[in-house]
Formats: sequence, C-alpha cells, structure tokens
Amino acid sequence: MDIIVLNKKASEKDIRNIAKKLEGWGLKAHISRGTEKILIGVIGDTSKITEDEENAVKVMNGVEEVMRILKPYKLASRDFKPQNTVINVKGKVIGGKKIPVIAGPCAVENKAMLISIATKVKAAGASFIRGGAFKPRTSPYAFQGLGEEGLQYLAEASKKTGLPVVTEIMDPRDLDVILKYTDIVQIGARNMQNFRLLLEVGMCKKPVLLKRGLSATIKEWLMAAEYIMSKGNGQVILCERGIRTFETATRNTLDLSAVPVLKQRTHLPVIVDPSHGVGKWDLVPPMAKAAIAAGADGLLIEVHTNPEKAVSDGEQSLKPDAFKKLMKELKPIARAVGREI
Amino acid sequence: MDIIVLNKKASEKDIRNIAKKLEGWGLKAHISRGTEKILIGVIGDTSKITEDEENAVKVMNGVEEVMRILKPYKLASRDFKPQNTVINVKGKVIGGKKIPVIAGPCAVENKAMLISIATKVKAAGASFIRGGAFKPRTSPYAFQGLGEEGLQYLAEASKKTGLPVVTEIMDPRDLDVILKYTDIVQIGARNMQNFRLLLEVGMCKKPVLLKRGLSATIKEWLMAAEYIMSKGNGQVILCERGIRTFETATRNTLDLSAVPVLKQRTHLPVIVDPSHGVGKWDLVPPMAKAAIAAGADGLLIEVHTNPEKAVSDGEQSLKPDAFKKLMKELKPIARAVGREI
Amino acid sequence: MDIIVLNKKASEKDIRNIAKKLEGWGLKAHISRGTEKILIGVIGDTSKITEDEENAVKVMNGVEEVMRILKPYKLASRDFKPQNTVINVKGKVIGGKKIPVIAGPCAVENKAMLISIATKVKAAGASFIRGGAFKPRTSPYAFQGLGEEGLQYLAEASKKTGLPVVTEIMDPRDLDVILKYTDIVQIGARNMQNFRLLLEVGMCKKPVLLKRGLSATIKEWLMAAEYIMSKGNGQVILCERGIRTFETATRNTLDLSAVPVLKQRTHLPVIVDPSHGVGKWDLVPPMAKAAIAAGADGLLIEVHTNPEKAVSDGEQSLKPDAFKKLMKELKPIARAVGREI
Amino acid sequence: MDIIVLNKKASEKDIRNIAKKLEGWGLKAHISRGTEKILIGVIGDTSKITEDEENAVKVMNGVEEVMRILKPYKLASRDFKPQNTVINVKGKVIGGKKIPVIAGPCAVENKAMLISIATKVKAAGASFIRGGAFKPRTSPYAFQGLGEEGLQYLAEASKKTGLPVVTEIMDPRDLDVILKYTDIVQIGARNMQNFRLLLEVGMCKKPVLLKRGLSATIKEWLMAAEYIMSKGNGQVILCERGIRTFETATRNTLDLSAVPVLKQRTHLPVIVDPSHGVGKWDLVPPMAKAAIAAGADGLLIEVHTNPEKAVSDGEQSLKPDAFKKLMKELKPIARAVGREI
Repeated sequence: MDIIVLNKKASEKDIRNIAKKLEGWGLKAHISRGTEKILIGVIGDTSKITEDEENAVKVMNGVEEVMRILKPYKLASRDFKPQNTVINVKGKVIGGKKIPVIAGPCAVENKAMLISIATKVKAAGASFIRGGAFKPRTSPYAFQGLGEEGLQYLAEASKKTGLPVVTEIMDPRDLDVILKYTDIVQIGARNMQNFRLLLEVGMCKKPVLLKRGLSATIKEWLMAAEYIMSKGNGQVILCERGIRTFETATRNTLDLSAVPVLKQRTHLPVIVDPSHGVGKWDLVPPMAKAAIAAGADGLLIEVHTNPEKAVSDGEQSLKPDAFKKLMKELKPIARAVGREI
Repeated sequence: MDIIVLNKKASEKDIRNIAKKLEGWGLKAHISRGTEKILIGVIGDTSKITEDEENAVKVMNGVEEVMRILKPYKLASRDFKPQNTVINVKGKVIGGKKIPVIAGPCAVENKAMLISIATKVKAAGASFIRGGAFKPRTSPYAFQGLGEEGLQYLAEASKKTGLPVVTEIMDPRDLDVILKYTDIVQIGARNMQNFRLLLEVGMCKKPVLLKRGLSATIKEWLMAAEYIMSKGNGQVILCERGIRTFETATRNTLDLSAVPVLKQRTHLPVIVDPSHGVGKWDLVPPMAKAAIAAGADGLLIEVHTNPEKAVSDGEQSLKPDAFKKLMKELKPIARAVGREI
Repeated sequence: MDIIVLNKKASEKDIRNIAKKLEGWGLKAHISRGTEKILIGVIGDTSKITEDEENAVKVMNGVEEVMRILKPYKLASRDFKPQNTVINVKGKVIGGKKIPVIAGPCAVENKAMLISIATKVKAAGASFIRGGAFKPRTSPYAFQGLGEEGLQYLAEASKKTGLPVVTEIMDPRDLDVILKYTDIVQIGARNMQNFRLLLEVGMCKKPVLLKRGLSATIKEWLMAAEYIMSKGNGQVILCERGIRTFETATRNTLDLSAVPVLKQRTHLPVIVDPSHGVGKWDLVPPMAKAAIAAGADGLLIEVHTNPEKAVSDGEQSLKPDAFKKLMKELKPIARAVGREI
Repeated sequence: MDIIVLNKKASEKDIRNIAKKLEGWGLKAHISRGTEKILIGVIGDTSKITEDEENAVKVMNGVEEVMRILKPYKLASRDFKPQNTVINVKGKVIGGKKIPVIAGPCAVENKAMLISIATKVKAAGASFIRGGAFKPRTSPYAFQGLGEEGLQYLAEASKKTGLPVVTEIMDPRDLDVILKYTDIVQIGARNMQNFRLLLEVGMCKKPVLLKRGLSATIKEWLMAAEYIMSKGNGQVILCERGIRTFETATRNTLDLSAVPVLKQRTHLPVIVDPSHGVGKWDLVPPMAKAAIAAGADGLLIEVHTNPEKAVSDGEQSLKPDAFKKLMKELKPIARAVGREI
C-alpha cells in the first residue's frame, strides 16, 4: 500500500484518521492536495502491510482507491535476490547455462512401458524422467493413476537410467510416500492455489516444480511460489503450461511472454511445458523451439512409445523418434541464445 | 464418444480396426461415407466409455476427430434425474419455492462480532450463517483464519440464532473437525478441481456447497459435482461466484446466464454469490436482484458490521442495514418469478 | 496522468526534467520521497493531458509507472454531467422511468414478414422495431442484408405501427441512406472501435445505439461513446450484448454487472440485448428479467415469426407468443425496481 | 453442416422433413439410429451450405445440434491450395525461405524522423518501412495521424531507402489515397471484422496485411481473410499481434501457437508483431526470436529513434541500436529452423 487516493471532499478529520492509522504501523503520511483529488504518499517500509490491512484502509471515509507500488511477493522477487537461483538435483542442474529436458508419459501405466520410455528419452538427451502416479482427471470415471505402485516404477526407471524423477502431488496426505520415490515434487495447474499443499511442500527439502494455474496471473503465480518459499523451501521451479483463453484451436494458449516477464521479476528458474500448452503432438516441436528462443531454462515434454494406447493425453505425446529429432533441432536454437542443451 | 470422423483417405483396415475396438466395448459401428469424410456413428450405451478410451480412439490411424454428444456427467444430469434435488438442512430448504439466503462475514474474526452479525442477518431474514475459519488467501502473509476456534464461534452463533452453519474446507485433513461444527461444507472456487477434496466430501453425509472455479466451464463444474456424487453424496449445491475475464471494473464477471443453463442441465440447486462476483458492496444489491430474476435458488451474501475493520473482503461486504434493505427489496422480485424469500 | 512513480535511484536532474515538462503543460509537481520510490503528484487540471503526452512521460529517465486517477473520458462521465441523459424519439423515451423494448428480427428478410413481426411486437408492448438491412456476417458467403430495400421495408413497418426504427450502420458511406429511414442508428459490436464510423455518426442528429465490443472493457466502451460525443452528438445509448470468455455453453457471456457499473460512471442510458448475450431463445426470458432487475434502462430482443426460416440468428429469436408472454412477466420485475414497462 | 444430431424422440416425419430439405440442396441424408440419439450424416458437397442455411436446420423439429466438420473457409484453406502463397513486393518476398522484417515507428510524425528511422532500419536489414498516417486511437483526443501528408513522407522514405511501404487503412473512403503511396495495405486488429473494409481491399491489387482481432479466434481470422480473397485478392498476409486475456503483465498475450496452427490450416504467409503483442520494448527481442523459432514467415517491429518523444506507443518501440542488435541475434535462430534473415 503506497498511495492513497482521496476524494477532494474528504475532510481534515478523514485525513487525520488515515494518518493516524499509518503512524500506528510505523509509517508516515505525505499529503498532496490536487485540484480533483487528495493523495497520501505512504513513507516507510510498506512491505509489511498485509492485504488485509490495505483492505481496511480502502473502506475508510474519503478513500477512493489504494494503489500498491511494491510487489506483494518478496522472497520470490529479483529485487530481494538478484542472482539466479540454480537448482542441482543429483548432478542435473536447472537454472544454469545447460537447458534440462524433463520427459516421460503423462501417466505411469506399467513398468515395462515406463522403463522403455525412460531409456529412450535418456538416449535422446533428456535429464529427468516424469510420469504421474496420482492423476488429476476431469472425470471421476477416468484412470486416476497407479498410486504407490506407479512411484515404485518411477524409482526403478530412475535406477536403470540415472535420470532423477519428477512426479505430481495432489494431496498433502501423500507427501511422505511421494518423497520416498521422487526427486522433484510437481504441483499441477489445478492445485496452484491449493494453499495447504503449497505450505506442505514448502516444508520439505526437495525442489518443487510449480505449474501455472489455468487462469493465474503472473503475480498470483509468484504469490504461490512465495507460499512455498515462506516455509523455507527456496527451490521452486516455475512451469508455464498455457492459460485458458477464448481460443479453442489449441488446448490452452501457451503464454511464452511469461518467460521474459518472469526472468525480470524473479530469480527462480522458468521452464515451459509445450505439450499441455498446445495439446497436439505436432504443434509441440515448434513451441518447444520457441520456448528456448524466448529464454526458458528448461522444457517438460510428454513422450509415449505408443500414444494410441496411452491411458491419458496420448494426443499430445511425442513418440520417442520425434522426441529424438526435436532434441537435435533444439541444439542450434539453444546455442543461438547462448545456452546448451 | 459418439461420432468418429475419419479422413476420406482412411483405409478399410483403419475402419475395421476402429469397428473392432468398439465391438470390444460392446458397441456397434455405423459407417457413413461422405464425399469428404467418413463418419462412424457409435451405436450402444456410450456413457461408460471413459475419456481415456475416447482419447485412445483419437490417435488411431485415419481418425480426425471424435465428437461426444452425450454429456460426460451422469449423476448430476437432469436426463438421469429429471426432478429437482431439494436439500433440507435443519428445516431450511434449498431448491424449493422459498429462496434461502446465506449471510455472514468473509472470515470469522472474533466471537462477539460473529454473534452480532448472525443476530442481525437472522432478523433481516437470512436462513444460514456463513464465515470462514480456514481461509484461502492469495498471500501467505495474510490472515489465514482462526481454525477450530473459528468453528466454535460459528457453532455458538448457530446455537444463539438457530441458523445452520456454512463454512469452507481447504484440506482433507480438516474434514473431521469441520464436520463437528458445520451443517454445509463449502468447497471454494480455488479448490473446485481439488479432486481429492471432492472425493473426501463425497464420502460425508452433509450437503456440499460447490463454488464454480475461476475459469471453470459449466461442464467442468458439473464434472466436479459428479466427483462428489460418485462417492454417494448427492446433496450438492452449485454456487456461481463470477468467472475471470479481461474486464477489471469488477473483481470477477458474474455469469448469471449460468443459472438458466444449469437449471436445464442439472437437477441440483443453483445459488449465486454476488459479493465475490462483483467485489464492491454497492454493486451487490442490483446483482442479487438480477440473480433471483434469472432463477437462482438462493443467495450467498457477505455481511459485516464494520467493513472498515474487516480482516478480509471488507470492500465487498454489506452493512447489516443495507442487507436488511436488500432483503426487503428482493421480495417482490422473488414473487415476480413465482418464488418467495 | 496524475501520479508519476520514480525509481529511488532517479536523479535530481530526472526529477527536474519531469517537473519542467509538467510546468510546460501548466501543471505543478508535488514530490514525495519514500524509502523505496519517489512519487510525483501532478497538481492542476490533468484532464487535458492526452494519452500521447502521458506515454511520453512513461519513457522519461527514472520513471517506473504513470498512474491516472481521473477517467480518460469526460463528456460521457457522470462527474461531468450528473443527471441522467434522457432520449426522446418520436415520443418513445429511453432513460426514463418507463423501460422501452426494441424488438424485431435479426435481418430484414421481406416486407410481409417484417410487417407481421412489427405488428405483433407492438401489440405485445414493444416501443421500437429493429431489423438489419446491412448485416455484418462472419462469412462472406452468408446473406449480407437487403440494403436500401430493407430500409424501405423498415420505414413501411414503422408507418404501419408507429414504432420508430433502429437499424445498424456498417460503413460511413451508407450514413445518408440510413438516416433517410431510421430513427436510431446502431453501431454493432464489431464496429465499436471503428473510429471513423464513430466520428461520422457523431456528426448526425439522430441517437446512436452503441453496442459493446466483443472484448471491450467498460472503459474502452465509454471512450467509444466519447468519440461520438466529441463530435457533438450526446444522444448515445449503451447496449450490453455479452462479452467473449472461455465459456462455450452460451454464445457470449452476458455481463449484467456492467449495468450498475455504468449507471455509476455515466449519465447515458444503458440497455441490454439478451438475445446475442446468450444465443439461445430459451435462455432469453430469464436473462431479460435479470437485466431489468439489475437496473437496465431498456431491452433489445430478437423476435421472428418463423425462426426455422430465419436467414440469420433463428436460434436466438423468440416467437411472437413467447415475446408476448415475456413482456407480461417483465412487468412485476420492473415495478419491483421502481420502473414500468 | 455435416452431421445433424436428433433427439431419440424425433418422429419419422421430423426426419423426412430434414431429409427433404437436404435433398433440396442436392445432398443426401444417411441416418444412424443410436440408443440415445439419431444421427444424420450429410452426404455430398456441403461446402456450399451457408451458415444461414445451417442455422435454419438447427431450429427444425427434433434437431439438437448441427456439427460442421468441413472448415467454413475455402480459398484460404490449405486443403484448397496446398502450396504456400508467396508474395513478392518490389523484389521483397514474404512467404519464402528468407524472413522479411517490417520496421518503423507506430505513427509517422514528421519527415526527418521517418527518413532517419527508415535509413537506420534498412542498414540493420529490414525489408519494409512501416508507419501510420491514419491512426486508430482509443481516445478521440489523442493524435489521429498526419493523413495524406504522412503518406507522402512514407513515399519519400521509400524512395530514399528502396524499402517498400506498409501502412494502415481505417476507412474505405481512404483507399484511393492510400493506394497511391503504399505497397502493402494493413488492416488493423480493431478492423479485422470491419467487413466492408475487407471487401474493399479485396478489390484492390496490392497485398493486404491482416492483423488478428483482439479476441478473434483463428477460424474467424481465416474467415476475414476469406472475405478479402472472395473479392479476388489472394495476397493476404496474416499477422499475429497478441490476443486479449486476463493477464495484465503484458499489453496482450502473444499467441505464438497460432503460427504452427495457421501453417497447417492455410497456405497464406504468417508474420508476428511482438511489439503490440507484449507492449514493452525490452520484451520484444525474446519474443521476436521465439516467433522465428515457432515458424513465422516475417516480423513487424516498432522502431523509433526517440521513444521518449514518440507521439504513440513509445513504450514498446526499440531504438535503432537495439533493433540492429536484434537483427544480428535473429540470424542463427532463422538458420536453426532452415530459414534466413
């Protein structure tokens, strides 16, 4: 809360009341009387003023508007920590010069399939294996994931290939079992504002991959990261995966401009998931290239050996050969922006 | 999955493969060869075909598109249950001719305040008292609610006034303590697709007030209701509270057309929360009236005795006098659409 | 332009440059130095500062943000003209206590049909006849309207029934011919920011019905009204007709909260078109009622004697009997909000 | 119109009526009776069925839904013309291997400035000079452009540098004067569905740069191209410039996935305007790179020698040095996707 706009009819008493409230918070009021409005500039460290306190000012007599200039997040902000956060998971680095690719099926379906995919994506140059054991599905009648069995397969695939594991958490009660098997915990788009889950993963020691909510603004997304960081876990990876708009030609609208915006506002690494962003496998390669060109620190790509048999999201999965071809094509793009892949 | 569109270049083998897949599910394929496309009409009860199975067909050779005609929800559908669901909570009825109003502060702040508000909204004609003990807040630094203490105050307010209690659940681990004190469990907009929470409240015996997600389609919203109902709890109340659009003049865009659309598609009661829908107290009365005129079965309205001191959402709360005035003004509107309030 | 936010690193020279620029415009700078930012409050009549001049300040050294408090429209603003604008067209009043209804087919198709519809809507209580002679169609292959012939039929229908005519203009070159036959000129949603057309109708003497653009903010809509008014035509009627959102269950999302927001910000009359707002005839009656309850000054409703044969928008047209029934049902709603219909 | 879905309660007479209607259009009905619905597959060339005729079917007895499989545009479709459209303007090619860049100020302000910018962007490798002489501005009080004087300056800049000219048309009455001076006529986002203007430029012999509307779907955008092409002008260049969403961190949301989607659906060249897409100059370079990586056939970039003095859009303009640097950085990206710049 930094500027308070008052109606020109606000009385001296109204102004005094506001000034007193600010003084109670250790702040000073600096008054500018315009011809149409009266402004109160708030002097002091306003970052500790909560949204609630701000709201209480909004309804005081004479107040028309309260404008906040400082950002509501702090730990996630690049002002607070100018240098990039670099996350190292068993030797795989996110946020450095080399661009890691997280690949794998949408859902873990069975052991053989998963190991086959993991082996192939590793050979093509992926750095992490991903797969869902707990699946958020729009319909209660759709496959909900293998649960702990799926996590075990992920761990085996990881052991075979050396690729660390990324998997999604949906329920705070699953945290212990998930932490046993995974290297990075994923928060899905639908849970970006599941604040209890955010606090819970904020208390664990493993990095958190935080997907952007379907209709989350960049500010809300950074506030969700702040939730995790406020509990002591600074290892947050932001993942753009498309936002909901009126356009139906693609599953979502991949907002690649979020990448450079975030690189200005936060020190956290930013990766892109073009598979969910577009929802169709043949649109994934151009958007993966565009993501790297826009400055993304990593990619998350769905790969399936047999999309026709995939229990979920087969439509948007690349086959291993297409993935291998893409990995090759990404190299010169990465070089062109001073990175490696 | 009801119509499969094939490219005219699809081979006889492609068509046979699809037909075989359908037969495996106990369905029949009815083929229409057009000049540009080949269509397969799927004959039989396709309602048991899951989204996953549908996706598997989408990636078969020759397939261009799969069109589903039947709705993906069943228990929530008016086709399945034509008569309105009527929910009776300690004698207060939702979904009947009389329109109940749920009123109270955004958050429970202290006992005296809550009891004062409860007494006043009851006198004005409200049927339920609401208030948050567990609060989903955008910022981790904002007031997160009083927890069980808040629930106790709600129970006391209920005892004093006879108004049953509505309060929000954010975490499946809180269900037991919340059920001890509340009469209706609320799922907030940000948790509309917190599927684990939906399953959990689906197993309890109390009615569930399910708010629409910020960017949820009506179909997704009904699927969320289906999640709850699939576990045996058919007492679901849908609550429109505004969707996210490009317009910033209001906090959200209250989608009142959702009311008549839902009344066609589902037998569940539909209520409207104009307070969150618009976010400014002086816009609440016209939108509350409009909601009733559009056919809503109830209202949820934020009321606070001292919005200036409210810890959250003071801006959108009516003072008790304004609430009383509104309740009076709603009467002739309700009568005009054949209801009572 | 009213508050200029500077980085705390801004130099004294930066501040002086800005102050000098403001002085050149006859304004004064009032400087507040905070701990994180420096604010310049702009004192004087900033309403004459154009968007261009504001933009020029935005890129000056040290400037982080420019915040405008005053609204960018003036003639359309209720601050400028507090009392309601009331428009009288051949004895039919828009913006008064009585709520006029504009009814008729989407497109004028032939004389007999139009006269039949006009006669029926008049009998049911409509105040204006509408119909398109020049039709904006998404496809170049769809019926584009009868042109002047259609206008002649409108004039004949008007003569027969006494109902004044509302019809749409798409091209400034058609203004003369349209003015010969119509009483109110309509600007369609797709032309809300066709600025040349706005200026043109701003120079005519007949009232202008200005539909909201598909994705226009309320501010942009009022700026479009300002375009018309800036040329001397103050008789502008605003018409909410639904905005584009992610929801596909309705053709558009009817934003009824725009009605009370506009009634606060502008003195111009505000009417609602539920037919385009929802796109399905059976959703029109509840939304028409809701519009009146929300405070609308009028309605625009599509009526067709034979929707099955309508060349456009048959799906959303009421038959005359349904229209007659609706007109009756609107009466008690109007009375409940202190109006008549 | 290709599939008609009927309620299972539709009578034989309903079905016969529909079949008769189809036969009247030279089409055949192929009926599939399912357990829940009856489907009519429409056999024959349905591309000549207009939207109006389709709507007339929608309201026939028994009909629940009409599903169109064929695309509503034809001339713009890649099915109709598989090979890429390549446009040659005075030796500068759009749609070929080499990627042209259109650069220049938002508005033409004066001759010296324009010539200075043109000289600099040419030296940096631009292929076209752009600048607005007729400016669509949100406010009637903002600078509206120099008109024909501005066009003359563009022609002079073109003569000096050899760069062909791109400039915007807002009004069909300006076509003659604009065609005298420009090489490519631009239709701005706000006029994408100004159908009269589309028809007008469809009758001229010069290429048309068609910007995507603020909230236009890809389908509507291609229909707008179809309007132009239906009048005989096949030289249409599509320009993605960001769509309106809920996100306010950028001016618009640049939808780069539109590029690969369009490359599948149409043979027309697709270029990207990152300046309007993001609205801030420092976000332009990463998004320009991303556009090329995504497969764009060209770029449109705002460049101004003195953004602080720009009368419009200074915030989003690159200075010539930044533009020169960007042009260099784009080269390896273009090479990586098999193009040149």
